[in-house]
Amino acid sequence: MSSEKFSFKPIGFLYTPFTNPKTTPIQPLYDNDLEGTLEVNEEYVEGLKDLEGFSHIYVIYQPHATGRPKLRIKPLMQNVERGIFATRAHRRPNPLGLAVLKLEKIEGNILYVTGVDMLDGTAVIDIKPYCDRFDKVVNARGGWTQSCAEEGE
Amino acid sequence: MSSEKFSFKPIGFLYTPFTNPKTTPIQPLYDNDLEGTLEVNEEYVEGLKDLEGFSHIYVIYQPHATGRPKLRIKPLMQNVERGIFATRAHRRPNPLGLAVLKLEKIEGNILYVTGVDMLDGTAVIDIKPYCDRFDKVVNARGGWTQSCAEEGE
Repeated sequence: MSSEKFSFKPIGFLYTPFTNPKTTPIQPLYDNDLEGTLEVNEEYVEGLKDLEGFSHIYVIYQPHATGRPKLRIKPLMQNVERGIFATRAHRRPNPLGLAVLKLEKIEGNILYVTGVDMLDGTAVIDIKPYCDRFDKVVNARGGWTQSCAEEGE
Repeated sequence: MSSEKFSFKPIGFLYTPFTNPKTTPIQPLYDNDLEGTLEVNEEYVEGLKDLEGFSHIYVIYQPHATGRPKLRIKPLMQNVERGIFATRAHRRPNPLGLAVLKLEKIEGNILYVTGVDMLDGTAVIDIKPYCDRFDKVVNARGGWTQSCAEEGE
């Protein structure tokens, strides 16, 4: 099997209320309705056709400088080290972020979204429609996060 | 804003029943229970700790050769051209695939998964846990795919 490297370039950038890396949540603990905009580079605008029909989108993004990757990490506000692939922390071997955002509207090359938790100016690598029939999970078991959720309730 | 390129290298490979690109579904139309294995490179095994507690995982992968990117595309079995970002087709500016798979068990560096629709030997770039509180979408509106689903029902 090949282990060649793949390279990607941003298709746009996310603008959010979070300008300070130290106070930006890695991931909000619960649903959030924070608003942001995703500005798609002009050259890709044609690819946005039909997207507005979807209420939610996946955004794959490149987190800001995250430091050297780690295979074990203590998630935000947790005291136990977890395997990096069992977390959404950004210091992963390939630092990619994934978020489901609510798509409010599209004007030209600008997507108005809610649910943002990324730093202002985050580079976006891909946008995909959220589709119930591929993505909807019923009765998910949430591993270590489940007990945190129960504690918080 | 920077538009530098980012590069990633595979953390493992997916082994599936699909060895022929011509007959491999781009995305199954409905839930599928096809089994596969995701073999994580030994150097990353430590990062799998705690993952088995999750019933579902996101897998971000690099589709096999997809051809030149297109901004408009006719999705599988469809006659209307859609914007590429309103589809899950692979000929996107940054050809990344995203799937939610059911995680059956982990043995060493091997994840046993169901729901695969990728070609055998597909390179995996990242694995993330599926978490209801980040990822669950209630009452999603499915854009153009919604009418296809209704036709199929």
